[in-house]
Amino acid sequence: MATPVAPRRATGFRYVAGVPVDPRQVVEAYWAAADARDWEAFAALVAADVVYEVPQTRERVRGREAYRRFNAEYPGDWSVTVERVIGAGSEAVSWTRFEVGGEVMTGLCFFVLDDDGLIAHLSDFWPEPYDPPPGREHLVERW
Amino acid sequence: MATPVAPRRATGFRYVAGVPVDPRQVVEAYWAAADARDWEAFAALVAADVVYEVPQTRERVRGREAYRRFNAEYPGDWSVTVERVIGAGSEAVSWTRFEVGGEVMTGLCFFVLDDDGLIAHLSDFWPEPYDPPPGREHLVERW
Repeated sequence: MATPVAPRRATGFRYVAGVPVDPRQVVEAYWAAADARDWEAFAALVAADVVYEVPQTRERVRGREAYRRFNAEYPGDWSVTVERVIGAGSEAVSWTRFEVGGEVMTGLCFFVLDDDGLIAHLSDFWPEPYDPPPGREHLVERW
Repeated sequence: MATPVAPRRATGFRYVAGVPVDPRQVVEAYWAAADARDWEAFAALVAADVVYEVPQTRERVRGREAYRRFNAEYPGDWSVTVERVIGAGSEAVSWTRFEVGGEVMTGLCFFVLDDDGLIAHLSDFWPEPYDPPPGREHLVERW
């Protein structure tokens, strides 16, 4: 993945060794590696200077090795399933279902790829359930 | 926007009267109409049988008129700014900054377009701040 790259084309696609990088495939491979605990494959998908951010907690992890450890050390017998991926050019987003200890969480992660097709930046969100505000019951159903 | 459409092409793009619909432009127009309180333009971008869902509260709104009212009646002197839009084929996602009463919230919304290029489904998330879990301070910085 680290071969020299052609300049970015007007299509917005990233090229590695002349082959366009589909950001959706990168994100699918990223989650497959995570779910398989294949931390070598996982680390190979991210840039050496990757930056991972959790806007909700204002946490940031810098660098491939710290980011690999951050994930490899994540506690619990979790599993992750990809619900939806949208990608175009150098950007993508994933909607995942994260299961740990009988709990199900939703993960929403925005990815930016660098010119090598590697993941250079992640913004990771974990929206949690909350009670609906009052006053809109006349327009809303619940499930 | 409601003229007959050609069948969906293999590119994944939606066509309306032979012109490909860029889902990012639809989403940008949607947020511009919302921020301007132009509820006529807003309603014209969504399908008659639009379904809006808030997975965190398990709320659902069905139909263009109910959805227009849901938004038009939303309380407070709010404003919305688009931070990021990713779109491809019939799908898109927006990351918005929502300001109301001095508070800033992050909105993440997934869109699905129908064959007319109209917004047929929305999954709307509002991730809120939370305290970081302990045990990863050695890998994380805060901002």
